[in-house]
Amino acid sequence: MPGLRDLGEVETLRRLAAARRAPPGTVVDAGDDAAVLRIRPDHELVATTDTQVEGRHFLPEWLDAVRIGARLATANLSDLAAMRATPRWALVSLGVRPEHDVAALIELQRGLAVELARHGAGIVGGNLTAVEGAEWYGLTLLGEVARGAAWTRHGARPGDLLLVSGHPGRAGAGARVAQRLGESARAPEWRALLEAWLEPAARAALALALGEGVTAAIDLSDGLAGDLMRLLEASGVGALLDEAAFPADPELTRAAQALGVDARSLVLGPSDDYELLLAIDPAAREATLAAARGAGVSLTAIGTLTDVPGTLELREAGGGVRAIEASGYDPFAGPA
Amino acid sequence: MPGLRDLGEVETLRRLAAARRAPPGTVVDAGDDAAVLRIRPDHELVATTDTQVEGRHFLPEWLDAVRIGARLATANLSDLAAMRATPRWALVSLGVRPEHDVAALIELQRGLAVELARHGAGIVGGNLTAVEGAEWYGLTLLGEVARGAAWTRHGARPGDLLLVSGHPGRAGAGARVAQRLGESARAPEWRALLEAWLEPAARAALALALGEGVTAAIDLSDGLAGDLMRLLEASGVGALLDEAAFPADPELTRAAQALGVDARSLVLGPSDDYELLLAIDPAAREATLAAARGAGVSLTAIGTLTDVPGTLELREAGGGVRAIEASGYDPFAGPA
Repeated sequence: MPGLRDLGEVETLRRLAAARRAPPGTVVDAGDDAAVLRIRPDHELVATTDTQVEGRHFLPEWLDAVRIGARLATANLSDLAAMRATPRWALVSLGVRPEHDVAALIELQRGLAVELARHGAGIVGGNLTAVEGAEWYGLTLLGEVARGAAWTRHGARPGDLLLVSGHPGRAGAGARVAQRLGESARAPEWRALLEAWLEPAARAALALALGEGVTAAIDLSDGLAGDLMRLLEASGVGALLDEAAFPADPELTRAAQALGVDARSLVLGPSDDYELLLAIDPAAREATLAAARGAGVSLTAIGTLTDVPGTLELREAGGGVRAIEASGYDPFAGPA
Repeated sequence: MPGLRDLGEVETLRRLAAARRAPPGTVVDAGDDAAVLRIRPDHELVATTDTQVEGRHFLPEWLDAVRIGARLATANLSDLAAMRATPRWALVSLGVRPEHDVAALIELQRGLAVELARHGAGIVGGNLTAVEGAEWYGLTLLGEVARGAAWTRHGARPGDLLLVSGHPGRAGAGARVAQRLGESARAPEWRALLEAWLEPAARAALALALGEGVTAAIDLSDGLAGDLMRLLEASGVGALLDEAAFPADPELTRAAQALGVDARSLVLGPSDDYELLLAIDPAAREATLAAARGAGVSLTAIGTLTDVPGTLELREAGGGVRAIEASGYDPFAGPA
């Protein structure tokens, strides 16, 4: 298929629109000045936005167009999961080079739309513009939640349990393995870590499966220690993590050895896993874990919240307790 | 104030959030994984998104940070006006260079927020990322409209009247004058055109002041002929414009002389005026014009819709009728 320079904006938008279907609740679809959408009665609107920049949030040599689109969906779906919202409608904003092949752009939209559709959402509008340097792909995702039922970061209390889904740190470990080993990272032994980095899945189904008892939630987009610290600051509490309680992860241990780093730094450090981190009332422990098993998602209690605001400590496997420094990913940080 | 590289993402976001206030209807504000917003009963959600790219949608040498922000607001407010929606909540997505001064970024947000607040809306969330080349500023604007009351592009019928607000073509003329005359374009004689280009205002108040009788609407972001053609295609009708009925515009006539072009090409050609173009039932003519006068906005009947789908004709001042070619702005078009 020709590039955008040949087809032009209008025809490209027409082809993109023809290749997708509007999700339920769409009153006026893309192609007008704005989309008109119908929220269910007694529900509130939940809105988030995220943009992925070429070379910064994804490396084209490691991801095809479909996976780039899927990853953009996941980043936003994960934010809604952390609010307990049901995803509904998405607006896409694309900054692409004039020579970008339109077929590849339709593939990107397909990856995005398929991942959204897995959770009941779809694209209802957007915006397409030309850029000269790095391309960027932005998504605004709208969802809904029963009135008053949204989770936030600020409801956690001392004594609450801290739970995390999946295996935090794998995405960051995958990125570091790829960076260090280059093409060799494509070997089968690194597949699980590479997939965690390149094809993360939002915990949307888990969020909707859980019952009452969650007091605060955040998704892991920067790294366990960094995102946990945000939850602690918002709630005005501290946390004591129990290293022995963390889910065993031989994949991560192997990566730590290959990279010559401490496995703990991989678990706690920068990593966009899109797992959910939850604070729950201790009384809801069994029901919460049972609901997660029912949803087919591993969920592990990894610590307890304390009454010392903003402090993050780790009880090491040996029994000692030490403070943890929370350093997330900062896109503006200069070279170290 | 230092740049983003020194302050970092988290502190910059904190300062941006501290410099604004959440608009009414905000249940959970920025600072969580997503915003939670409350739609009024019996209303539908209206959503649009637009991004302005440095050097393409605006030229930094002609606009300060406050005006860049205001213009981004206007582009999105205008889309909601064309749907008859009341603006409510905005999500901002910024791609900025690490050396961008944080004080300047706060100024940009101020321009954006002030323009939104003039129409009752405000910022509830966003996203900040680092770029290396051209900066881009994206906005998703959410509004609401009484159920079933949204205007669209597709309801116009043959016999309906075509009305336009303000003086279409001024923004494009201002841009061309600036391009041609450089610094001399800052002379007082060009002020009205320069303002139309650099400080356009969305017709949000007009849209909300009008009663029943509007059958279709679109905002002028590409140019009168191009945007009108979109409305004609969506509605399956044609249009006959009456040149003698167009609002007299000595400013535009003077620009046409200075540029050595036909004034008509300035009125009809590429221009992002953010005026409203409306099709109305002829029976609503007087009430519509009276409502516009009440809102302090000039609104002019410039033609009639016909039953020849997709054809756009102009009755010239001399009496002859000729076809018009609709060529809007295409960001992907190569050099002519």
